[in-house]
Amino acid sequence: MRARLIIGFFMASNTETQSDLPSAENTLMHSETYAASSVVQTQLDMNSDLIQSLIEAVQAFKPEAVMTCARGSSDHAATYAKYLIETHTGLLVSSAAPSISTVYSTKHTLKKVLFIAISQSGKSPDLVATAKAAKESGAFVLSFVNVTDSPLAKLADHVIPLRAGPELSVAATKSYIATLSALLHFVSEWQNHSALKSAHKNLPQELTRTLELSWAPAIDILSSAQNFYVIGRGIGFGIAQEAALKFKETCALHAEAFSAAEVKHGPMAIVSNGFPILCFSQKDETQAATADLLKDFTSRGAQVMAAGTGLQQNKDDGICYLPTIDGSHAATEVILFVQSFYQMVNALAIKRGLNPDSPPYLNKVTETF
Amino acid sequence: MRARLIIGFFMASNTETQSDLPSAENTLMHSETYAASSVVQTQLDMNSDLIQSLIEAVQAFKPEAVMTCARGSSDHAATYAKYLIETHTGLLVSSAAPSISTVYSTKHTLKKVLFIAISQSGKSPDLVATAKAAKESGAFVLSFVNVTDSPLAKLADHVIPLRAGPELSVAATKSYIATLSALLHFVSEWQNHSALKSAHKNLPQELTRTLELSWAPAIDILSSAQNFYVIGRGIGFGIAQEAALKFKETCALHAEAFSAAEVKHGPMAIVSNGFPILCFSQKDETQAATADLLKDFTSRGAQVMAAGTGLQQNKDDGICYLPTIDGSHAATEVILFVQSFYQMVNALAIKRGLNPDSPPYLNKVTETF
Repeated sequence: MRARLIIGFFMASNTETQSDLPSAENTLMHSETYAASSVVQTQLDMNSDLIQSLIEAVQAFKPEAVMTCARGSSDHAATYAKYLIETHTGLLVSSAAPSISTVYSTKHTLKKVLFIAISQSGKSPDLVATAKAAKESGAFVLSFVNVTDSPLAKLADHVIPLRAGPELSVAATKSYIATLSALLHFVSEWQNHSALKSAHKNLPQELTRTLELSWAPAIDILSSAQNFYVIGRGIGFGIAQEAALKFKETCALHAEAFSAAEVKHGPMAIVSNGFPILCFSQKDETQAATADLLKDFTSRGAQVMAAGTGLQQNKDDGICYLPTIDGSHAATEVILFVQSFYQMVNALAIKRGLNPDSPPYLNKVTETF
Repeated sequence: MRARLIIGFFMASNTETQSDLPSAENTLMHSETYAASSVVQTQLDMNSDLIQSLIEAVQAFKPEAVMTCARGSSDHAATYAKYLIETHTGLLVSSAAPSISTVYSTKHTLKKVLFIAISQSGKSPDLVATAKAAKESGAFVLSFVNVTDSPLAKLADHVIPLRAGPELSVAATKSYIATLSALLHFVSEWQNHSALKSAHKNLPQELTRTLELSWAPAIDILSSAQNFYVIGRGIGFGIAQEAALKFKETCALHAEAFSAAEVKHGPMAIVSNGFPILCFSQKDETQAATADLLKDFTSRGAQVMAAGTGLQQNKDDGICYLPTIDGSHAATEVILFVQSFYQMVNALAIKRGLNPDSPPYLNKVTETF
């Protein structure tokens, strides 16, 4: 056995001195994360009629497949939608590669396709162009947007407003949670699924209760990290993708998301002594396999952090369990995870000398073509 | 501006001393990569009749959508298939999340779906179970497998053998190239696309010519790296995914793949001084935007390596251009990229003190459930 010391040299051009930095409780990211509970409550109160008329239209359209279209955080919400829709409707859900219509100029055959476009701003040009092409190909275009006078909202057949209010931090937080909640609202009513509907109604108060929990132990582990993995599976995989992106955006940390299944194929090769792993494991059919995977990681010496009320917590297993509340349903439990995560990553950024509200080099709307 | 030194401590438990290591020309990975040209020629010679009868069956079935199902390298071949099939047929291509049928027990509605299962070994239990569920739901199951007496081959409606011969290195090389080639064979004949058919016929000799090129400059840049990005777009994105996985498997290097579009959303935040980027840019409609992106990377001080004959190479732009030949078509150019990449990553592993044929902790067949 041989130990190797690898040194990465890293210039952060807009890090601020500690005295310039806000406290963790004083960032927009912090206050916008705290607004999530009331945003979800507002959606529940104000979107009911819109959701009902949407469902009537969807039922009349009789979709035979679903296509999602989004970028960045919204695309991670689309991953959540894929699992939610496939497991509850049996319809096949495909993620649009926007370049296929906007760059390669392909005309899809989308006659019986429900096309779901997701965007906070509703104005990324490639999403707007892809949604327009989908509409021309016969798809039913449904958009989830925060800005309801946006181009994407205007061209959609139906619009579900996220009602997150203005989001001023570059890093999306409340709009991401609002998107998951709006997708859940749609699917639970579409399928008239009582457990999902009831979990959604409980979500605002569960989000509020979750704010009292602290994931500070993860900050200690990650304050000097450089690169690591975030793991999720099934309905939790989109949350892992979102967390990995936020680590990059706000902390200049190279986190990569893997499903608990895919990580065993090759990616396991770099999991060794001291390698950090953050795992989200909701209480559902995936949990037993994920719990086994955590043991694999710790046997390789990885520094494992895990969130999930259903996980059996053994004091001697070397895993850092992050506190969670026993939520109503796996589909809302993962939303609680991401809220706790946002609070943690906001404080981690500050600890690493970065202002999470103004990440290096990023704009709120990225224009791709 | 403040410089930060980040130190990652890394234990490679089965690194070998330099004297135990084979030379780069003496690994299975090297000889298997070199076999790619003859494997593709064998496919062209031996699979024609099978492809023709497959196409008759597919035309009779009249698929309205396509679902791919694969893991690891085979799933990166599925990404290639998504772009190839969507841009040439207009059909929507969805990537199966195997957990949806095997863990969540969902029954999909797949009556008019062409289900493409891809696996070298043909025996990963979750793929077999997902393919079986797809067949029961009415899909037409087509499998691309190297081991033709495998469970996946046995249950499929049609089988296209990869004809890669036994693959002994844990890291897939010739079987990955064989999969791309077999997918190209299928799509070019299905669409009776003369440019694709002609490019495929030229591929064996182009692979042979490409073997003479050396990507050694990339080895110098990456020999002391820890983490970085691999970029591709469109038909080249699956190659970027494959490269990122191989860096992990064979070099214990944390490389993450991004599409040239998606990297601008958030992931750009960690691209700063000295951060390595490897970019594959084939000669097609995506290239102009990718060339602009390369300038963004270099303006941030990134160490950019780029492959693509169509890229305008300016000696003073700070980009390390990797040699390529002017191939017949973008869909085969990316296959030439991955062959050059395999040669380079094999030598890089040795330089980093690792044997690419026996990566830490990995087995050839990963059993997921």
